[in-house]
Amino acid sequence: MRNEFDLIRRLTKKIPPKLQGLIGIGDDAGAFRSGKNTYELLTTDAIVEGVDFALSKARPEWVGRKALAVNLSDIAAMGGIPAAFVVTLGIPRNFKQRWLEKFYEGMLKLAEQYRVLCVGGDITRSPVFFASLALAGRAASQKSVLRKGAKAGDLIGVTGSLGGSILGRHFFFEPRIREAQFLKKFHPTAMIDISDGFAQDLGHILKASELEAEIFLDTIPVSSDALKLAKNRPPKALEHALSDGEDFELLFTVPPRQKKALEGKWKAAFPRVPLNWVGNILKGKPGKITWRRNGKKAAGFFLKRSGFAHF
Amino acid sequence: MRNEFDLIRRLTKKIPPKLQGLIGIGDDAGAFRSGKNTYELLTTDAIVEGVDFALSKARPEWVGRKALAVNLSDIAAMGGIPAAFVVTLGIPRNFKQRWLEKFYEGMLKLAEQYRVLCVGGDITRSPVFFASLALAGRAASQKSVLRKGAKAGDLIGVTGSLGGSILGRHFFFEPRIREAQFLKKFHPTAMIDISDGFAQDLGHILKASELEAEIFLDTIPVSSDALKLAKNRPPKALEHALSDGEDFELLFTVPPRQKKALEGKWKAAFPRVPLNWVGNILKGKPGKITWRRNGKKAAGFFLKRSGFAHF
Repeated sequence: MRNEFDLIRRLTKKIPPKLQGLIGIGDDAGAFRSGKNTYELLTTDAIVEGVDFALSKARPEWVGRKALAVNLSDIAAMGGIPAAFVVTLGIPRNFKQRWLEKFYEGMLKLAEQYRVLCVGGDITRSPVFFASLALAGRAASQKSVLRKGAKAGDLIGVTGSLGGSILGRHFFFEPRIREAQFLKKFHPTAMIDISDGFAQDLGHILKASELEAEIFLDTIPVSSDALKLAKNRPPKALEHALSDGEDFELLFTVPPRQKKALEGKWKAAFPRVPLNWVGNILKGKPGKITWRRNGKKAAGFFLKRSGFAHF
Repeated sequence: MRNEFDLIRRLTKKIPPKLQGLIGIGDDAGAFRSGKNTYELLTTDAIVEGVDFALSKARPEWVGRKALAVNLSDIAAMGGIPAAFVVTLGIPRNFKQRWLEKFYEGMLKLAEQYRVLCVGGDITRSPVFFASLALAGRAASQKSVLRKGAKAGDLIGVTGSLGGSILGRHFFFEPRIREAQFLKKFHPTAMIDISDGFAQDLGHILKASELEAEIFLDTIPVSSDALKLAKNRPPKALEHALSDGEDFELLFTVPPRQKKALEGKWKAAFPRVPLNWVGNILKGKPGKITWRRNGKKAAGFFLKRSGFAHF
């Protein structure tokens, strides 16, 4: 298989549209009607030993926290409110119970913090440890914020700073639930959480919305971790910011008329979370990104690594 | 670890009651409030290559069907209506795409049959194939049917026939969604789907309800598969019926006054699904089962295998 996305596309094709729920497959979460005017969100994400983390390097509390946090981030990206989750564990023979208890502690501490319920689970034997969580949530108002929906002329915004999450932030990031709820008031046209990397996740929005974008490289919020990882070489750090996975920040588009009000209130609401405008949505070739520096096309700029793919 | 149940108990203890949802952990599904007077059910169940099936023996369509069917059975056992699911696949390197497509076909065919939506999923790399599904459902009326709730004097009923599912029925069983909805009209006090085996699952009801039971061995519906597996020796076949796992039939308790009406209407509604009364709920030691034959205590009768445990 070439990569995860090819395979997902191929399998998704098997699902008849009438079985795909309200918004179709391929967004951060699925949606289905639960009452007259409300709908329910459902998402799932798994963490596998040796693939997503190394038993020798990651503490069980961290892994437990992350297993839930990535799902919270998906519900956040839809503008939803997380409600309850179930957890399936695959456990090797003679696996340490103490490790599992610590895993649970990390997971439940975050659950308590975000007031989500842990309503059940399943345990099965497996040659390697895995945890597969599914999280249900509510769409607070009538509409979820999808990947599709961006309009030509929209501004592209991003929360936090990007790159180098491998140095630790991929375990300890805060799912942007509150931030997403706040953004929802300003009529975002599209939103995604950055899990595959900025460039790749922007690509998801652009392909879903059938538009292109220009990105101003000078405005990209490069994290101190990216700089550290790049041994203080800014061009390399920028590359990390654009292509590293697992930032779990929000990438969104809004009509330009929202900018002023959003900016003003953002600072009061989230004084410690940066908000940056990094580019514009344009008419054109679906998925295309033009990189600009000082307003001019960044000649010779390209991304070697186009983001994190699981395969 | 001694077995699955010990470990689940130990991990469940970590979950503060306020995070456990409306009915607590340990039933067939979890429940949480989704609207004013409605609540949502959520369940999860995984299937792992080499543990739950052998790649060389099971067709991918069968495995895909079963991965969804076991979750449907859990929602059925709560008296719920299944609504939508998500699927996480763990896939080894160089795994056959064709196999995965067939897996999806089996899963989706059943989804269509039971009108449940496939609203999303996740794919991750894994050294062995696994599929972890999470299914959300609605409780049709106000109350779910739990494991606890059986009352002394209640009759114990079971749908279908039991034992020997390993000969194929564990792949092709029909989740008892409609049957459970029907039973719900007759005020069942407790219900479970038989996945660990009759004796063990009855034990779950008895422990949760803090009561004991008498079972009339002559009334146990022994399946033709159990008889086949026992090479036509009835005592051995009975043992299979009582202890084999994965029948996915409904085991329930109702007040005796419901018996006549229930029986009469059952035959009209489900002419091809047996319904048998196999015993009574009694006051006494939580979890204890007294086996009776011709009304008398079955001297010397005991179960060598007390049901299927994953560990």
